[in-house]
Amino acid sequence: MDNDKKENIFSIINNGTITSVPGFYAAACHCGIKSSGKPDMCIIYTPHDTTCSGIFTVNKFMAAPVIFTKKQLKKTRNMKAVVVNSGNANALTGEQGYGNAVKTVEMASDYLKVGKDNIIVSSTGITGKQLPMDCIEKGIKECASKLSSDGGHSAAEAILTTDLKTKEIAVSIKVKDGEDIIIAGMAKGSGMIEPNMATLLSFVTANVNISKKLLDGILLEEAESSFNSITIDGCQSTNDMLVIISNYKSGIKISSKKDKYYVKFKKALSFVLKDLARKMVLDGEGATKLIEIDIINAKSKKDAKKLAYAVANSNLFKTAMFGKDLNWGRINTALGSTDCDFDPGKVSIYLSDTLIVKNGTGVEFDSKHTDKIMKEKEIKFTVDLNYGKEKFNVLTADLSFDYVKINALYKT
Amino acid sequence: MDNDKKENIFSIINNGTITSVPGFYAAACHCGIKSSGKPDMCIIYTPHDTTCSGIFTVNKFMAAPVIFTKKQLKKTRNMKAVVVNSGNANALTGEQGYGNAVKTVEMASDYLKVGKDNIIVSSTGITGKQLPMDCIEKGIKECASKLSSDGGHSAAEAILTTDLKTKEIAVSIKVKDGEDIIIAGMAKGSGMIEPNMATLLSFVTANVNISKKLLDGILLEEAESSFNSITIDGCQSTNDMLVIISNYKSGIKISSKKDKYYVKFKKALSFVLKDLARKMVLDGEGATKLIEIDIINAKSKKDAKKLAYAVANSNLFKTAMFGKDLNWGRINTALGSTDCDFDPGKVSIYLSDTLIVKNGTGVEFDSKHTDKIMKEKEIKFTVDLNYGKEKFNVLTADLSFDYVKINALYKT
Repeated sequence: MDNDKKENIFSIINNGTITSVPGFYAAACHCGIKSSGKPDMCIIYTPHDTTCSGIFTVNKFMAAPVIFTKKQLKKTRNMKAVVVNSGNANALTGEQGYGNAVKTVEMASDYLKVGKDNIIVSSTGITGKQLPMDCIEKGIKECASKLSSDGGHSAAEAILTTDLKTKEIAVSIKVKDGEDIIIAGMAKGSGMIEPNMATLLSFVTANVNISKKLLDGILLEEAESSFNSITIDGCQSTNDMLVIISNYKSGIKISSKKDKYYVKFKKALSFVLKDLARKMVLDGEGATKLIEIDIINAKSKKDAKKLAYAVANSNLFKTAMFGKDLNWGRINTALGSTDCDFDPGKVSIYLSDTLIVKNGTGVEFDSKHTDKIMKEKEIKFTVDLNYGKEKFNVLTADLSFDYVKINALYKT
Repeated sequence: MDNDKKENIFSIINNGTITSVPGFYAAACHCGIKSSGKPDMCIIYTPHDTTCSGIFTVNKFMAAPVIFTKKQLKKTRNMKAVVVNSGNANALTGEQGYGNAVKTVEMASDYLKVGKDNIIVSSTGITGKQLPMDCIEKGIKECASKLSSDGGHSAAEAILTTDLKTKEIAVSIKVKDGEDIIIAGMAKGSGMIEPNMATLLSFVTANVNISKKLLDGILLEEAESSFNSITIDGCQSTNDMLVIISNYKSGIKISSKKDKYYVKFKKALSFVLKDLARKMVLDGEGATKLIEIDIINAKSKKDAKKLAYAVANSNLFKTAMFGKDLNWGRINTALGSTDCDFDPGKVSIYLSDTLIVKNGTGVEFDSKHTDKIMKEKEIKFTVDLNYGKEKFNVLTADLSFDYVKINALYKT
């Protein structure tokens, strides 16, 4: 990633938000869903034509806004508005819940003067309760009246639940002043973060006229190494949604992989998604640490991924990390509990650059040095299986008292 | 189970231990492995001929005592002694570790005057450290010198690690006085409890002359619905071992399924294993609750099991249980995250006898009543998939502050 920046493919915009992209407007408000009084609704809007792509949860109990939005995208990819509420996920709400997603779009269509087919919806929060539609209408009305090109940051705040921080990023690919390609994103997600899809809400904006086929392809590929390569608690949500909307404001067209800006756009989007994913793990529920697990030289990609997640989701490993304890045996044990094809006697494990396990067994190492590393906020383990050529990298958080506190006290 | 007792198949022996079985002797001591000064070694011994069966961890990083004991059982099933140490698992210790398991048996053979082929070993505790062989020898010497038919309870104490309580049970099948069939068991296991095998240490004694083929078959079948149907943290150990040794003291022979005592023996053994498994979950690391998940009317047994474990291992579900919160959405979400074949729109969920979810969505229920149930020490959820005829039942524990504390502070 840093290499891409060094190559001057793109630059990061200071304090960038989703409205750093020309032609995008946003607004947020407290409409009354959250009893805390915190912002609980936002709208992202562009008056221009767009191409929209999305990736959604694969959970069988897909929430109403996910079912609705997936249907919308089958009709057209020209999305001009996203209505997002937090505080209530409109999940496990049956037909009434689906009807409320439809009503939300009808209201937004009225207030925004945008066609019903050009609006999508997204929700996050508690499950099993119907949306308070009076609040929703109040929120849409208020947001619609104050859309602004400065509204990006407030929108990022309004989608949060147990998150402590907003997750935002914007990058710029140089074309010429006033025509630069800008890609910006925001995300929420704190617990319930696991792949198989997004397992979070994330909205990305851009300003190029890109074909839907190309945008779908890039999003799918880059989600795999970003949002689909993180885990906080191994749990999956019913509401996950990663959506990118690119309006045609810059006048730049990307209609084939050979187009001048295709690779640059792809690399910059990859950076945006990885940055948001990383921020999400750092802000994981109760997380005190970001832990990177790098599985290398596996027999197959599938095995590499399974092994990476076996470690990343092991409660014993995660509690050891919280305790700043280099309990490498818990890594071996997690690897060994899978049905993956590898030879335990060939496994080497490194903490940063320090070899701690060779041929499956512990070796002598400088524990003063490793103790120091274990106290760092971000640490990395490399597991070399010496058994093939495939690899997978996953980011995870530790399991702390606060994770339990947040999830035991989060009352329905 | 209660039915079996009512039918007078067997009766529970008050304060029964593994030495409640005639012809079994045990002893325990502190040999110096645990710095706490708590008991860390025991020997179970019988001078009689026996049939021994075992089930072992399938973790690829199998610990030395597991590798050794599996090999021993290939030579003969006539096991007269088990040497167990706690405080050090002799796991991830390479060739030296295996050599230490061999040495342990050689020492035990000398002190007990039992053939080397008739002794098995088992270890639990920290991983990655070599056994202190001077302690081991001291322990074997001491235990061998004080073997007694009253030693069962002290042996059950000596195998504990983070467990708070011993897990012991003994039952008696009436034959005639002095010849009754007795089956007794003890177990340890607190964290790292998941199926795919035993994922614990458990030793069962009995006094019938049963063929190895029959004993293998019964053990495998009954382990499936006991030790292989519980989970505490979804983590698997390198040292799991469930071993039954039946000496021939009662004079009763079971050599075919048609033998008079075959069914009674099987039912009584099933009760012993289920009782130990249940006690293990109740004493799970940090557990404040035992939660039973009953999946019914699944399309296949495999799906039923996968769905049961998806709920039982969901950190979000487990923290909600710790919080005494009936957050049924987390059950749906865990079910929905699997690749199992079922229809979310047909799912019903019950808390005890109270219907809380119908057709995949929440229904009205008496929350005063359910709040009361949620405060109980043992609760049960039934998930009716209405999609087939198969079922699976699993026991799990909640995820509490103490789980994190125990596992973050358990330093290597």
